[in-house]
Amino acid sequence: MPELRKDPVLGRWIIISKERQKRPTDFPVEVSRGSGGFCPLCPGNESFTPPEVYAARPGNSPADSPGWDVRVVPNKYPALVIEGELAKEGVGQFDKMSGIGAHEVVIECPDHDERFSDLSPEKMARVFQAYKERILDLEKDHRFQYVMVFKNHGQAAGASLEHSHSQLIALPILPRMIVSELEGAKSHFNYKERCIFCDIIRQEIQQEERVVCQNELFITITPFAPRTPFEMWILPKTHRSSYYEMNERELEALSELFRETLQRLCGCIKNVPYNFVLHTGPLRSGNLEYYHWHFEIVPKLTSIAGFEWGSGFYINPLPPEEAAAYLRQVEN
Amino acid sequence: MPELRKDPVLGRWIIISKERQKRPTDFPVEVSRGSGGFCPLCPGNESFTPPEVYAARPGNSPADSPGWDVRVVPNKYPALVIEGELAKEGVGQFDKMSGIGAHEVVIECPDHDERFSDLSPEKMARVFQAYKERILDLEKDHRFQYVMVFKNHGQAAGASLEHSHSQLIALPILPRMIVSELEGAKSHFNYKERCIFCDIIRQEIQQEERVVCQNELFITITPFAPRTPFEMWILPKTHRSSYYEMNERELEALSELFRETLQRLCGCIKNVPYNFVLHTGPLRSGNLEYYHWHFEIVPKLTSIAGFEWGSGFYINPLPPEEAAAYLRQVEN
Repeated sequence: MPELRKDPVLGRWIIISKERQKRPTDFPVEVSRGSGGFCPLCPGNESFTPPEVYAARPGNSPADSPGWDVRVVPNKYPALVIEGELAKEGVGQFDKMSGIGAHEVVIECPDHDERFSDLSPEKMARVFQAYKERILDLEKDHRFQYVMVFKNHGQAAGASLEHSHSQLIALPILPRMIVSELEGAKSHFNYKERCIFCDIIRQEIQQEERVVCQNELFITITPFAPRTPFEMWILPKTHRSSYYEMNERELEALSELFRETLQRLCGCIKNVPYNFVLHTGPLRSGNLEYYHWHFEIVPKLTSIAGFEWGSGFYINPLPPEEAAAYLRQVEN
Repeated sequence: MPELRKDPVLGRWIIISKERQKRPTDFPVEVSRGSGGFCPLCPGNESFTPPEVYAARPGNSPADSPGWDVRVVPNKYPALVIEGELAKEGVGQFDKMSGIGAHEVVIECPDHDERFSDLSPEKMARVFQAYKERILDLEKDHRFQYVMVFKNHGQAAGASLEHSHSQLIALPILPRMIVSELEGAKSHFNYKERCIFCDIIRQEIQQEERVVCQNELFITITPFAPRTPFEMWILPKTHRSSYYEMNERELEALSELFRETLQRLCGCIKNVPYNFVLHTGPLRSGNLEYYHWHFEIVPKLTSIAGFEWGSGFYINPLPPEEAAAYLRQVEN
């Protein structure tokens, strides 16, 4: 079983995933996968993945057969495993925990060659709906505190399969970044009695220079202190702390703006590798006054040297005001 | 002038370095430098770098001429600049600061093809001495709070020049990672009245399974919760909070163990790309009872996906106990 271990100084948790274990001769592992090969995510190959946990099947075809628009399956090489007790243990002065969790793959479309950024808003909405359904289902499992949803697009951004997919990891702890975000947001709220993200949205709409695009319900900005060129955040304009509270109209509006945002990004840099991560409230946390869910899209353009991820200190050659101006210029 | 900007939620500072500015068409920037080309760091090419700020010249040759063993020069494309006032400014609800700092390149040896891990302990000691001298000099500038010393080895780890070198950035703020480390260590000290790193060293020596190698004064361990396979920390066995307090005997012992550590790493994985970062107390912080300086060596073997550096949550396929066993087996 995988293990969760806590750095005693920083309080940072890491996963030791023996299921994915390697010997020294297996490194380096940055192997690219040929495009001509077999794809376990394509329709017809359903039996090569673990049984699906969710699918959008407009024709009501049977589970684990073709006919799906979106399909969610457990990861065949999971970083965390779903079966077992959540055992917590001290090892001398150290802390560890059994690696209980869920690790799922969201297959975003049946077509092997279609890219997420090219999906129609309707198709994209099905993916966002799948995230919502999976989070709602995983929330029932009280061993889990958080569901992290993320996408790696392009090999440079860590994707190991070509077929468009995102991933979802249910965790028995809160990731450090979310803890920091919650703490920062809470301290602002305690002082000002306002959500810091609502404050940011108000200021950005007024100043305009970091706004990339918006519609009635959502806004895309380049953040004031971005880690990388063209980093963008997509936020709901109305205060909401949990992603899965979205209704159908909001899902549609999100999909339209998400598509436009990625199209603008791809219009600036062709074939750009990127990651996005959903930032949402902890499971079962109810409606938090101080937190505001959002997506963070981080293009992988600069080489992140060890210095940068090791120190938490980023050097970005492009001011976000200029990035936003470039992104706005893309014809849509 | 570059700018330092603070993320209002996380308190994370980033550098917007307009000096390194790029247009969208300049991305992606992960360009490798051909090996046959001109090297500005080689002896004889001293005029192609800014004037040196430090050099070890055994024959007392004149500055900016050949005859040096180690040479430190300002970075030609600095992320931060040394001239100017440290102006702090609010922008609406945001905070920024002028990008005052020093960004220097430590040329570790005259030979273009010699690798840091192959330097003799005597040559390595000159590099560690150069770090010490530069930190002591930069400490006098009261605009700076921290000097970060780091090395990127190999293109995958972010190195853009082949000639063996490390870098040094003097910052007007404390990097987030160091703040977290100081806070974690202080809270342990407040509770137990002991340095947490001293506690870790004691426990590791007793348990043995994560010890890679040691000598009288220093120890190399694989940390309990490593971010990557073969991550290692090198720590002084005696409590010390500042790197630059090292005396000559300690510099020698560090160099011997550092060389052995890297040789063991290279013995496990040939041509391994890696980063190391010096973690030391803030400038002018005196002797802190709760903090313990050390080096962190992080091989770049797994692909760090956006998820991992974006969430602060790492998935590591190799338990540190097994990594240490592999490293110990390398003949030295």
